[in-house]
Amino acid sequence: MARRSKRARSRRGTERLSAPAIMMPGPIIRDIPTYELVSEHQLDAVHAASMRILEDIGIEFRDAMALATWREAGADVIGSRVRIPRELLMNKVALAPSSYRYHGRNPHRSVDIGGRSMGFAPVYGSPYVRTLDGERRYATLADFEAFVKLTYLSPALNMSGGTLCEPVDVPVAHRHMDMIYSHIRYSDKPFMGGVTSPERAEDCLAMCRILFGGAFLAKNTVMTSLVNCNSPLVWDETMLSVIRVYAEANQACIISPFIMQGANTPITTAGAYAQLNAEALAGIAYAQLVRPGAPVVYGATLSTVSMKTGAPMYGTSETQQLMFLTGQMARRYKLPMRTGGMRTGSKSTDSLAASESLQTMLPAILAGGNFFLHSAGWLESGLSACFAKFMLDTDQLTVLQRLARGMQFEAEDLAFEAANEVGPAGHFLGCEHTLRHYSTAFFTPETADLGTYEQWSEEGSQDALARASTLVTQRLADYEAPPLNEAIDEGLRDFVTRRKRELPMDSL
Amino acid sequence: MARRSKRARSRRGTERLSAPAIMMPGPIIRDIPTYELVSEHQLDAVHAASMRILEDIGIEFRDAMALATWREAGADVIGSRVRIPRELLMNKVALAPSSYRYHGRNPHRSVDIGGRSMGFAPVYGSPYVRTLDGERRYATLADFEAFVKLTYLSPALNMSGGTLCEPVDVPVAHRHMDMIYSHIRYSDKPFMGGVTSPERAEDCLAMCRILFGGAFLAKNTVMTSLVNCNSPLVWDETMLSVIRVYAEANQACIISPFIMQGANTPITTAGAYAQLNAEALAGIAYAQLVRPGAPVVYGATLSTVSMKTGAPMYGTSETQQLMFLTGQMARRYKLPMRTGGMRTGSKSTDSLAASESLQTMLPAILAGGNFFLHSAGWLESGLSACFAKFMLDTDQLTVLQRLARGMQFEAEDLAFEAANEVGPAGHFLGCEHTLRHYSTAFFTPETADLGTYEQWSEEGSQDALARASTLVTQRLADYEAPPLNEAIDEGLRDFVTRRKRELPMDSL
Repeated sequence: MARRSKRARSRRGTERLSAPAIMMPGPIIRDIPTYELVSEHQLDAVHAASMRILEDIGIEFRDAMALATWREAGADVIGSRVRIPRELLMNKVALAPSSYRYHGRNPHRSVDIGGRSMGFAPVYGSPYVRTLDGERRYATLADFEAFVKLTYLSPALNMSGGTLCEPVDVPVAHRHMDMIYSHIRYSDKPFMGGVTSPERAEDCLAMCRILFGGAFLAKNTVMTSLVNCNSPLVWDETMLSVIRVYAEANQACIISPFIMQGANTPITTAGAYAQLNAEALAGIAYAQLVRPGAPVVYGATLSTVSMKTGAPMYGTSETQQLMFLTGQMARRYKLPMRTGGMRTGSKSTDSLAASESLQTMLPAILAGGNFFLHSAGWLESGLSACFAKFMLDTDQLTVLQRLARGMQFEAEDLAFEAANEVGPAGHFLGCEHTLRHYSTAFFTPETADLGTYEQWSEEGSQDALARASTLVTQRLADYEAPPLNEAIDEGLRDFVTRRKRELPMDSL
Repeated sequence: MARRSKRARSRRGTERLSAPAIMMPGPIIRDIPTYELVSEHQLDAVHAASMRILEDIGIEFRDAMALATWREAGADVIGSRVRIPRELLMNKVALAPSSYRYHGRNPHRSVDIGGRSMGFAPVYGSPYVRTLDGERRYATLADFEAFVKLTYLSPALNMSGGTLCEPVDVPVAHRHMDMIYSHIRYSDKPFMGGVTSPERAEDCLAMCRILFGGAFLAKNTVMTSLVNCNSPLVWDETMLSVIRVYAEANQACIISPFIMQGANTPITTAGAYAQLNAEALAGIAYAQLVRPGAPVVYGATLSTVSMKTGAPMYGTSETQQLMFLTGQMARRYKLPMRTGGMRTGSKSTDSLAASESLQTMLPAILAGGNFFLHSAGWLESGLSACFAKFMLDTDQLTVLQRLARGMQFEAEDLAFEAANEVGPAGHFLGCEHTLRHYSTAFFTPETADLGTYEQWSEEGSQDALARASTLVTQRLADYEAPPLNEAIDEGLRDFVTRRKRELPMDSL
């Protein structure tokens, strides 16, 4: 990257937005209609297909406790295969709340999940990071903390997320606690719980009990955790036991089939949807058997498998269709919906990464999503968490969140007086109406360069990726941690220290 | 760009799609619902605001013939200011056809403009090109021809477009003919006419008379040409006289206000829309006064002006809102709609260029557009036509065109038998159902790399831009011109030679 001249730096210095608006952005609301891709009749057909899958083929619950529960509830259980009559299934699904409040430790940061409210969390689960100089290496706890800080500073992200990247420098058995501690210490937005074992989920609950107090935790949802179905049609013991831990504690789970369309689902989109819907509903019904009214989120992790190479593809027409269907079906079932993400298979943070990300995220917004995972920084089919892409993604997310706010049509908005004042061949830059609105009008992406071509060339022809990298450095330098009660902090650190002593370092 | 190894080249050779599917892709149809952003009541409000602008403020028609026509039609004309009663206006607008057939010289290439049919044309009007090695230089006729060829070869583009780039090595007075000849000689898709003067529009008509025959031309629309309103509220003599030439000859015009929201319109989106709607309707009504039933396209060229630097911005929430409104209003007025484009202000073909392009094009598809200009290759606020971006854009356009086709919900699509055959924990890659569908399932972007990270690194870590550049070179090497009747070709060349002798080279 070319070194920037002093002049360029100072010019940009004055142009820069004032400090990022981290404080109280208010809820992120969809105040525009959802997009209804298919007819009610077509929804009926796919719902019926899902019911037929669960009644006739059945679904595996590879967990003795879950099987016992299903048998008791009246399902047909043979071995680990559970066949669920549609009345039983839908009666249980109907117990799930249509929305829930997802509490942050700062109450102003709490997010409603459901209805017109939208929650955005960044990248999840990447073993690698892409550093600011483009290196791909294993992620560390320091990287994890940096992503927590960037998320805290981003008004476009109102949730802190979960496994932002895998801190591989921490033993697997200890990671979940270091991650939860980071979310708590470096942010005050709602975060996600660990799901790699029921014991680790219990540790996350214990830390939340220290943070929020036992009484508050018993009555409120402070974690939302991601549990994936092993498609096709298998819920495994780990996932089911994690659902049990969280649902019993009234904490939310995203019940999410992991779809690679054409490989682990039928190749046709309606067929893929019928299956993922069956899987999600079975998981949701199970959570309701564990605790009626337990908060859940309906949705799926989507990709399309290339029939040429077997690689997952993102932002395809098929994933768009699946997202729109998910939205329509979530509204029919009255469930909060997980969808979207700035998802891409690209190996570099290039134009294709941007295209695939928006081909996913823009339809997800119109589909009526409530919980958006992977909203910033996701790269390379999730293998890498990219710092620069994080900034690029939050810029585009802001465009979409502004779109979602909708339009006004009052007389002041219709602006007849301004048009009359300016008249033909005039310009509006100085008129009263413009001055009244200009401070809230339009959003300028921070990663954009709005100078001339000549200025831009002179300053080294930096592309958006280079500018995004500079912004990451600035953000992290500007970061200040939100206050945290010292006794709570000490309590959390004591807990983590004690548990680390108890838990063997089973691997690095 | 790193040189690729022999091995890499041969691997990719076998993976490559067979020759691009240029032949008969069939009509490009939107078979999914349009997205309705605002209520009918809000549409009423903005329609009424537009009517009030035209009745009370009026609009300039800076052309004596047009003013005489308006006076005769019953408008209130004072100087060049025309105030148009809403009944007069809407009675004239109602004469415009809701769709028209836009003929290509190959009848299989004709495109219906209107209803569910969609036409896509590439970049328009750029003085510069970005070459395959990233140089920015003035465009030439050779560049123009290369873009015609690439467009001809792209199944995602069913129209050849117009001023793909400005061939600045040809005198201004001669350019229009060289451009029309290129469109005819190197493609057989429908093309656009020149609009820089009425005489040049007549030359374009004369060339179409040679190509299609006078009898055919008299009854059919073979050109659609872009005329811009000088916002706010001025139609100038050049544009009006070009509308006259084309409308009298039953050729179509896109009647398109050139919107820089906040600078040449009110800053509020509803206000900007009220103005652009007034401008477009006044132009359309004038075309109907010239010839009742003349084909027109309703829409606008959209950008949002940064209140920080005055630069135009693209893919903003405001342009998205304006596109959705344009679609709803076009359906209300029963007019074909121009919208969209892969538009960006980015100075390099980077991730921001891709994001802004999709933030424009994806909503444009859902808005129900019919004529999409700037669908591939547009860069740097239109200053540059970029060869590599052309390939990147057509890939993403294909994703959107597949989305627009909609979904099926027959038993075969719902795939119960496949789900039953595979069962829990199986995979679908080899099953009968997959084999039946796999040849038409999914679209693999040609600019994507679907190998592993390790393969990709080994091959030089090329990003999508580099791959797109390679594809451009391959395409142009593979190009073969569609047949053209020799007598017609000679007639066209004679006409151009004669007219060039007659017309002074007024500038280079």
